[in-house]
Amino acid sequence: MYEGVVQELIDELGRLPGIGPKSAQRLAFHILEADADDMKRLATAIISVKERVKFCQICGNVSEQDTCSICRDTRRDPSVICVVEESKDVLAIERTRAYRGRYHVLGGAINPIAGVGPDQLRIRELLTRLNDETVTEIILATNPNLEGEATSTYLARMLKSIGVSVTRLASGLPVGGDLEYADEVTLGRAFEGRRSAIG
Amino acid sequence: MYEGVVQELIDELGRLPGIGPKSAQRLAFHILEADADDMKRLATAIISVKERVKFCQICGNVSEQDTCSICRDTRRDPSVICVVEESKDVLAIERTRAYRGRYHVLGGAINPIAGVGPDQLRIRELLTRLNDETVTEIILATNPNLEGEATSTYLARMLKSIGVSVTRLASGLPVGGDLEYADEVTLGRAFEGRRSAIG
Repeated sequence: MYEGVVQELIDELGRLPGIGPKSAQRLAFHILEADADDMKRLATAIISVKERVKFCQICGNVSEQDTCSICRDTRRDPSVICVVEESKDVLAIERTRAYRGRYHVLGGAINPIAGVGPDQLRIRELLTRLNDETVTEIILATNPNLEGEATSTYLARMLKSIGVSVTRLASGLPVGGDLEYADEVTLGRAFEGRRSAIG
Repeated sequence: MYEGVVQELIDELGRLPGIGPKSAQRLAFHILEADADDMKRLATAIISVKERVKFCQICGNVSEQDTCSICRDTRRDPSVICVVEESKDVLAIERTRAYRGRYHVLGGAINPIAGVGPDQLRIRELLTRLNDETVTEIILATNPNLEGEATSTYLARMLKSIGVSVTRLASGLPVGGDLEYADEVTLGRAFEGRRSAIG
């Protein structure tokens, strides 16, 4: 064990996800030797984020105001909602510049092992947004893994009766990838989802 | 890019060693969602370490006082100095409970590519500690890699004329390891350093 504050810092760093005891120690020593102003900026950034960032009351995305910049943006199409698991997925989709609708951040995916059921996700908030009939399409953009697929299946079944169009992102070969290296599930999905190549 | 403070936090985290852009984003979102008190403790630990931790004036180890707890401990044998690269090596050796002497932390190893020569290490401070003839043995415990070996070789050559006994940690098979998986250099060293097996 190190003397007092160094060990405290190692302990606190070690509680972060993906940081094991060795990394925590390495980071602590980096912090010890780093420029004091840089480290003060890091500490301040951690505190500011906790103090200033909230979650958008409409879509659940991170925001410094009560509603996020996308929900406030009147140029965004209010008739389409893209449902994602996390705020970082919003960013990934925004980077494509292919989508001009709104979002809904669930805050995770259904995962019985981790104790996450539909009630732990922002599904009730999504249903509330569908009340006034502005929304005509919901795009399910959960992760293409077990939990994400389960969540989309659950949502699709629930939304069926509401009468909005519900779509899912296409599965298939990643662009720039090699067919020979695609796993069989992905390749199978690419076959299932094949489209007309003429016009 | 995220809104203001979130992006700032991602940037600051991404400047830490071994934290790439993806990890920085993941950590930032963890911090966003984590308990505010926990995160305050993390930020405080970073600031306290910068404010309160200094380096021992004698050995260069991390310390909250002018001299570290090992140099202050009168029960430690002052006639032996174990020379290590970093403070974390002190901890590793302390864990063995096999050593009761003092330490000297060089602050790195000779590495011409990274611009670290003997002048950048705490070698002058080591020589000063040898002035009063209390020290009779120096154990070179640098890392068993290229830079560490170069540093030990340099120190061994320099200390030869001073008349203290200079030793080096044994190289050989790691305990609990498998002979068949040992690399050839390690196995070669284990042969060179073989010892009598009879009493």
